[in-house]
Amino acid sequence: MKQIFSLFLVFAISMLHGQSVQSPSGKIVLQFKLSANGQPIYAVNYKNKAAILESALGIKLKDKPALETNFQVETSKTSTFNETWKPVLGEQSEIVNHYNELTVGLINKDSKVKMNIIFRVFDEGVAFRYDFPRQADLNYFIISDEDTQFNLTDNHNVFWIPGDFDSNEYDYNQTKISEIDNSKINMNNGIGVKSIPGKYTVQTPLMMKSPAGLYLNIFEAAVVNYPVMHLKADVTNYQLTAQLVPNAIGDKAYLQAPCVSPWRTIMISDDARDIVGSKMILNLNEPSKIEDTSWIKPMKYVGIWWEMHVGKSTWDYAGSQNATNFADAPKASGKHGATTENTKRYIDFAAKNGFDGVLVEGWNVGWEDWNGNWKEEVFDFTTPYPDFDIAAIAAYAKSKNVKMIMHSETSGSVANFERHLDRDFENMVKYNYPAVKTGYVGKIIPRGEFHDGQTMVNHFNYVAHRAADYKLMVNSHESSRPTGYGRTYPNYVAAEAARGTEFNAWSIGNPPMHETILPFTRLLGGPMDYTPGIFEIKMSYYDKNKTEQVHTTLVKQLALYVTMYSPIQMAADLIENYEKYPDAFQFIKDVAVDWQESKYLEAEPGDYLTIVRKAKNSEKWFLGAITDENARKTTIKLDFLSSGKKYKAIVYQDSKDADWKKNPIAYTIKTMEVTSKSKINLNLAPGGGTAISFELIP
Amino acid sequence: MKQIFSLFLVFAISMLHGQSVQSPSGKIVLQFKLSANGQPIYAVNYKNKAAILESALGIKLKDKPALETNFQVETSKTSTFNETWKPVLGEQSEIVNHYNELTVGLINKDSKVKMNIIFRVFDEGVAFRYDFPRQADLNYFIISDEDTQFNLTDNHNVFWIPGDFDSNEYDYNQTKISEIDNSKINMNNGIGVKSIPGKYTVQTPLMMKSPAGLYLNIFEAAVVNYPVMHLKADVTNYQLTAQLVPNAIGDKAYLQAPCVSPWRTIMISDDARDIVGSKMILNLNEPSKIEDTSWIKPMKYVGIWWEMHVGKSTWDYAGSQNATNFADAPKASGKHGATTENTKRYIDFAAKNGFDGVLVEGWNVGWEDWNGNWKEEVFDFTTPYPDFDIAAIAAYAKSKNVKMIMHSETSGSVANFERHLDRDFENMVKYNYPAVKTGYVGKIIPRGEFHDGQTMVNHFNYVAHRAADYKLMVNSHESSRPTGYGRTYPNYVAAEAARGTEFNAWSIGNPPMHETILPFTRLLGGPMDYTPGIFEIKMSYYDKNKTEQVHTTLVKQLALYVTMYSPIQMAADLIENYEKYPDAFQFIKDVAVDWQESKYLEAEPGDYLTIVRKAKNSEKWFLGAITDENARKTTIKLDFLSSGKKYKAIVYQDSKDADWKKNPIAYTIKTMEVTSKSKINLNLAPGGGTAISFELIP
Repeated sequence: MKQIFSLFLVFAISMLHGQSVQSPSGKIVLQFKLSANGQPIYAVNYKNKAAILESALGIKLKDKPALETNFQVETSKTSTFNETWKPVLGEQSEIVNHYNELTVGLINKDSKVKMNIIFRVFDEGVAFRYDFPRQADLNYFIISDEDTQFNLTDNHNVFWIPGDFDSNEYDYNQTKISEIDNSKINMNNGIGVKSIPGKYTVQTPLMMKSPAGLYLNIFEAAVVNYPVMHLKADVTNYQLTAQLVPNAIGDKAYLQAPCVSPWRTIMISDDARDIVGSKMILNLNEPSKIEDTSWIKPMKYVGIWWEMHVGKSTWDYAGSQNATNFADAPKASGKHGATTENTKRYIDFAAKNGFDGVLVEGWNVGWEDWNGNWKEEVFDFTTPYPDFDIAAIAAYAKSKNVKMIMHSETSGSVANFERHLDRDFENMVKYNYPAVKTGYVGKIIPRGEFHDGQTMVNHFNYVAHRAADYKLMVNSHESSRPTGYGRTYPNYVAAEAARGTEFNAWSIGNPPMHETILPFTRLLGGPMDYTPGIFEIKMSYYDKNKTEQVHTTLVKQLALYVTMYSPIQMAADLIENYEKYPDAFQFIKDVAVDWQESKYLEAEPGDYLTIVRKAKNSEKWFLGAITDENARKTTIKLDFLSSGKKYKAIVYQDSKDADWKKNPIAYTIKTMEVTSKSKINLNLAPGGGTAISFELIP
Repeated sequence: MKQIFSLFLVFAISMLHGQSVQSPSGKIVLQFKLSANGQPIYAVNYKNKAAILESALGIKLKDKPALETNFQVETSKTSTFNETWKPVLGEQSEIVNHYNELTVGLINKDSKVKMNIIFRVFDEGVAFRYDFPRQADLNYFIISDEDTQFNLTDNHNVFWIPGDFDSNEYDYNQTKISEIDNSKINMNNGIGVKSIPGKYTVQTPLMMKSPAGLYLNIFEAAVVNYPVMHLKADVTNYQLTAQLVPNAIGDKAYLQAPCVSPWRTIMISDDARDIVGSKMILNLNEPSKIEDTSWIKPMKYVGIWWEMHVGKSTWDYAGSQNATNFADAPKASGKHGATTENTKRYIDFAAKNGFDGVLVEGWNVGWEDWNGNWKEEVFDFTTPYPDFDIAAIAAYAKSKNVKMIMHSETSGSVANFERHLDRDFENMVKYNYPAVKTGYVGKIIPRGEFHDGQTMVNHFNYVAHRAADYKLMVNSHESSRPTGYGRTYPNYVAAEAARGTEFNAWSIGNPPMHETILPFTRLLGGPMDYTPGIFEIKMSYYDKNKTEQVHTTLVKQLALYVTMYSPIQMAADLIENYEKYPDAFQFIKDVAVDWQESKYLEAEPGDYLTIVRKAKNSEKWFLGAITDENARKTTIKLDFLSSGKKYKAIVYQDSKDADWKKNPIAYTIKTMEVTSKSKINLNLAPGGGTAISFELIP
């Protein structure tokens, strides 16, 4: 790891003129000034053109004067930082963190409160945060609103979902800024808990493309002890303003100086690949606080999960899911998924096919009455159903060298989970489970709190901290979306926090463009447990009356293992379905989950994405290409391969007549010999993809 | 334990006429009927006169039709219950639980929801509760209001404190019902967090005396998974209505049928001694859920506590109490109370004087910034200050056969405490602490919750449950007041939950009548850790500029060991002060804390109280007599002593010129020989008392 840090101070007693700082390459320029009434103002240029117009910064406090106007600049400091660091798990083995920084020290002329604004300008974009130094005039304080603005230059195209305080499981709307309107979207979308504050509030990350072809992404990084930031859109003036998620009584954040806000980020490029490949969000987080990370390992896993979504089995023992109390001893329905026998079958499959782990949902008492009632004491997190012999399963898994993944669904009752957390984690250690999938389906308890408020952000981070104490990896579902905190706690390996594969099983599902957007939004903050790998695409396979389906071809499901980065990656379909398609399954068996290097060959949000990645400490490369509902032809140069060497390429592609809706399981597999000088023509079906593995020929 | 249970059913298809049930002796009669519009109505007679006029019952639900009118009676059932049970610790070794019961099964003609009302009529009063049976038409539900009424017969005298959702640490107002007005009381009373919902809301237990001399007490029992009930007073019509404490979003209780409300209780007698001696509240709670209670033991203890209240030392290490972060390593101020050396001094004193335990407050990191800032992460509950060697202290205490009492102050951050609870309790077990004093000073976190809401009631009960898992006794301070749940979890040995002794050290204090009221109010629900035994009455002893003082004579402090029942009882003064008055201290050394039998010889709320108790498995008796600000002379017959036997009585009494304000430490001690035929004249000074120990002469 090399680190270059230089520092030079500029003291300006009265800085009436503005100040600017540019990115290392000079492409991006950030300008800062105070307005005539002393309000902080910033603007961003990209290649000498305005990318963000002059926008105001400020914070409102509860029971104290606002930190918005009447500021003067006390100090101003610029510095350069350039470091290369190694993530424990990642899309690449080394990450460059290079930026120029401007710290403006402000003092409010009335209240004498000091507030710094720290700007970092990278070649991929700009970040800034509010910094509250230790001071006599500000110790404890409550943020009632953050007024951070983003003034856009035009009526951009935008990929947006509602700024829901409780759910990020929407599919994306692709409209102009002027057309944002939460009241117009289909709410019959399978989402259980919705808390949308108004027509014009949308979530971050917010991906945009200007009419002139400039890509912009507004997001945040290092959300720690602070609520999630959504955005209120002024659809007439193309102005976005921070919308912090409130707590039960309407407050936004409880802070004590010295402290900082999360980073507000604006990624900017005229090439969409720069955004999808950016590590800016990770770079803005603190380095790992876990010293020994040797126990944090990538995992490919199968599990007892999709069979419940398709209706083949149930989470609960009695199969009713509406009993009121398990103490009444309901009888086994025979449809329970998480049985000892079924689990052993999955362990056998994992061992045979080289998978690291097995997830089992529905193993513990509580599922008979778990959802939709804002119930506080649902699960105790440790009591198995009578037909799940946890000790025997733990022993069997160990004998097969397979790791079990614990499932701790909270049903949103965080109060109950936190009470049981030590016992839950001790139970995992006892039975040798190295990882936990947490779940937060339902309205939050403490009641009045939202999934995206400060309380829950702190909870999700707390779970990562405590899990680290027990050397457990965390994969959280229905949590607030990550903002790079996995750098700081690398055991927080993945999250769902977006609309995952399961919606395809029982709702209107995820349209074909969905997976072409997520890497530009959700995945910028960290890995997503999207659970790809569904081979039996249509739910009519299970029940001929069902019309639901996965909105991709089978091959696109393979390609997602490359395009949807996660170091903990599921092969989500039933194992018997994999046994039906062993040739296609070979790609899932082969594909890596931790990477030396990644190259973003083609990218257009909402349309297509082609990524190739090199497995860590290996000469194997894997390519994933996906498209939206439109068929796509493209030619890929293989110049990422080592020159002068020969590779065996196995190409998994959609058949000529493949189509996500009409003919999704049609695929061909061909093997060829290639070199770095080769080109490959890809033919992606509507809703289709291509997956290729490259192996060095010795 | 004998138990007689008889049951007879009365089915009434249409019960237009009322129905009544009387107490075992016939003194009290409860009448029930439905009003013309189908609303449940009850009334209570005492000795053939109205004690409670016709009053309506009903519940409002959130998002569902109210359970108030349009009821019809489906079933009606009466039964008799008579049982004698033995409390683990108590004022008497056996308690008789004898009542007649009427269960009215109601069905709402519109919604078809079923609700039972269960009445129990004891010789000391009436209790009733709402019972929601398992049914198709009501599973999960939210109580938005309880409309239980208590219509009084007259403009009674009432002992009231504001119906504060967060504090029960007020001193009592003695007025007519028509004079209740929270806006008129002195709020400069030392209470940190106040949440008073209106002018006319008062707390239960509410003690009243009618102009005709009838004593009434409205309270509740078995508050489990339900908020505390206060009372809104209609001061014109002398009508009281339930005021449930809300949660952060205004809801009152989240319930799932089958379930019950707490008991609403009305104690009635023309003799105040029947009320102060009643075990009705305990009887209305479920029997112990702890099977092996052998580890639950009474304790008399000293501790490092009062010295902080009088300003001699500090809770925190650095003595500043306003540092922002202990990680900044503040320096020892030299005034820290909880040092290893000081603790050993207390252990030595306890061992020498026969005390069971030593409490130490301020031993752990966090006190430097603990109060008043709604701070979430204050204490970790396990990290001692550098000058408190917990391992050495634990070993030293063990060598002296003294038990340490843990102090776990939460500063109201219950979320933080629950996260640390297992580690806190494991730490206690590790260091051999058999009991914990919990504290809840400050606004509650989860923010928006109140001390008296359902969330916190559940928390206090949860702490008792979990403490039982670790075989720990709990003494909670600043909790909601107990309602007899100590019967069900006998390890919940005591609580503060009212204005305790410490207010005398630094506020307007507790007026002389305070201790004559608490046994009629707070103590009905369970033992109070009032921390009596202050010998150096005036704070000018510590600082000549101070005018604060304890509002009693020294002898009244002794008498409180009898009148203020608790099985965990502190000798609260500095041990050096006890060494100054060894003759008076002898009573504290001698007095028992667990009792075979108690007799309530004289009682008038707000005026005086004389109680005599027999130590468990002993022939020793202890008498405590207290008065308010008025001097009092009385003669006590000693007919409670075993007849035909001789006793040595040591009489601790106020000197003739003693006075709580002018001359509080003036006392005389005389020893005499008495029998069951003797009488003793007591002369209580203003704010004074008398304490007597009786020991069999062999």
